[in-house]
Amino acid sequence: MSILVIHYFFFVAITVEAMTAALSAGRRSMDWFGVAMLGSITALGGGSIRDVLLGHYPLTWVAHPHYLFITCGAALATIPLARFMPHLRRLFLLLDAIGLAVFTVIGCNVALEMGQPVIVVIVAGMITGCLGGVLRDILCNEIPLLFRSELYASVSIVTGGLYLGGLQAGLPHDPVMLGAMAVGLTLRLLALRYGWNMPKFVYAGDLHARDGK
Amino acid sequence: MSILVIHYFFFVAITVEAMTAALSAGRRSMDWFGVAMLGSITALGGGSIRDVLLGHYPLTWVAHPHYLFITCGAALATIPLARFMPHLRRLFLLLDAIGLAVFTVIGCNVALEMGQPVIVVIVAGMITGCLGGVLRDILCNEIPLLFRSELYASVSIVTGGLYLGGLQAGLPHDPVMLGAMAVGLTLRLLALRYGWNMPKFVYAGDLHARDGK
Amino acid sequence: MSILVIHYFFFVAITVEAMTAALSAGRRSMDWFGVAMLGSITALGGGSIRDVLLGHYPLTWVAHPHYLFITCGAALATIPLARFMPHLRRLFLLLDAIGLAVFTVIGCNVALEMGQPVIVVIVAGMITGCLGGVLRDILCNEIPLLFRSELYASVSIVTGGLYLGGLQAGLPHDPVMLGAMAVGLTLRLLALRYGWNMPKFVYAGDLHARDGK
Repeated sequence: MSILVIHYFFFVAITVEAMTAALSAGRRSMDWFGVAMLGSITALGGGSIRDVLLGHYPLTWVAHPHYLFITCGAALATIPLARFMPHLRRLFLLLDAIGLAVFTVIGCNVALEMGQPVIVVIVAGMITGCLGGVLRDILCNEIPLLFRSELYASVSIVTGGLYLGGLQAGLPHDPVMLGAMAVGLTLRLLALRYGWNMPKFVYAGDLHARDGK
Repeated sequence: MSILVIHYFFFVAITVEAMTAALSAGRRSMDWFGVAMLGSITALGGGSIRDVLLGHYPLTWVAHPHYLFITCGAALATIPLARFMPHLRRLFLLLDAIGLAVFTVIGCNVALEMGQPVIVVIVAGMITGCLGGVLRDILCNEIPLLFRSELYASVSIVTGGLYLGGLQAGLPHDPVMLGAMAVGLTLRLLALRYGWNMPKFVYAGDLHARDGK
Repeated sequence: MSILVIHYFFFVAITVEAMTAALSAGRRSMDWFGVAMLGSITALGGGSIRDVLLGHYPLTWVAHPHYLFITCGAALATIPLARFMPHLRRLFLLLDAIGLAVFTVIGCNVALEMGQPVIVVIVAGMITGCLGGVLRDILCNEIPLLFRSELYASVSIVTGGLYLGGLQAGLPHDPVMLGAMAVGLTLRLLALRYGWNMPKFVYAGDLHARDGK
């Protein structure tokens, strides 16, 4: 069951990631090609970085190239739909939060099947869930929001930790997976609702700037 | 025949890529090391990203390290020659357009020899032809021109598509390769001559900025 | 002997790299997660890029995930300690210079054990020693200091060249390694003391900006 559900969720996730990235491209006045490319890189980049770092070949979009049609299509479809986006904000935030949980679980699964140690499994989930957005921000010449924003990565770590912990406790896979995703989703939505943030570190010194490093 | 020709074209291509990247470095007042490194990353980065994403080892410059002498040498030679560059602008644009076609065909070939599906072959050609410039722009702290500029990536996709289509139609390799390169080169030069651009997507909303993603 | 020493030096190196990166994160007002992530990426990113480019799996932090605790811990510990940093500037610059030499030798060793050619060995050392800082600067939305600053990369190349040259001359490993590191360390400290810099290349032309590449 769950595998099929995850599969559907995955398509929802890459579609939403590509569409939100398309809006970023629009804010930078990119051309249609840039929109399609930024959407695809954002939607599939996190999983690609995970696979490259773990040496897990072939990459998802190489094994299933039609995913590129989904991400390019979703990004380009955003252009005419952009005017309606603000009205769909809550829906997109919900789908995006679901996508974060889905990407995290998928990333953990890849590392688990490779027999990676616990920490690497959690990190693999976080990379899959979060780094696509970091690539998007780098390509838009912005400091990654991930490093300064709501509990996005923390949600991914909690989701991955609960998922892995449940499996290691010998609990059945599907309830553990859905439970971990539900907790992560709830935490993310609460963070958005109440504007929860990690405390910030503000430093005005210049050790670094002067040491030429 | 063609292999040898491609080989010579490849040296022209990495030389031109390294020299134009050196000018970017000069606009950012980088030091001589930065010039050599930015030139090498720009000239060899597209192929390196392709090989890493496809798991195609060893990378070109690892198998042929002397290529690094060519790219570093070309980038450093640009420093004394910079004053003449504006007068050579048309020549450089021509050589750069040839380089785009050459990189694209080489990238497609790598994916073809790995038995990759059609879409991946086209994408591999585009990555090889275009992503070196994206790395250059990221390192120069600019939004990649590729996402906002002339039909650079489109030219690569057309070239790769014609090359692959011709081969799949059972046509002989050399005419197909040279024909695809000729069409791509012509399209690129026409785009430069008439300032053809992809339509842009301009969006001023803030869904994205507010959802912390 | 030396292997153990290098091992200890490595922990010092990743700790110092993570702490200096944490200060960069603080200057960008990143949250605690961003501080830990930027510190880890900076400390372990150079070696990760080296391993990915050479196809050398598993990556260091995948094989030894507890390194992530060191880098995250060092980065987070920097938050309360930041106020003392300016007073420790000389110590940090010394430790950072040692780290550069250590990373370089470790990177050269990885390529040597893979049987890579001479140039690739030197480049692998430089990538290991320098690219972590480039990733840090990209994520902080700055032009990499490496391309504009003190003889940081040059020191890495000299260290790697002496190390490799000594080994190829048949000299015993430990004295060669320690000697190369001592020369590199001295050169780096002299460059800092006297503000040595590579000459810069300044170019105001626009060939590049206009050619859409």
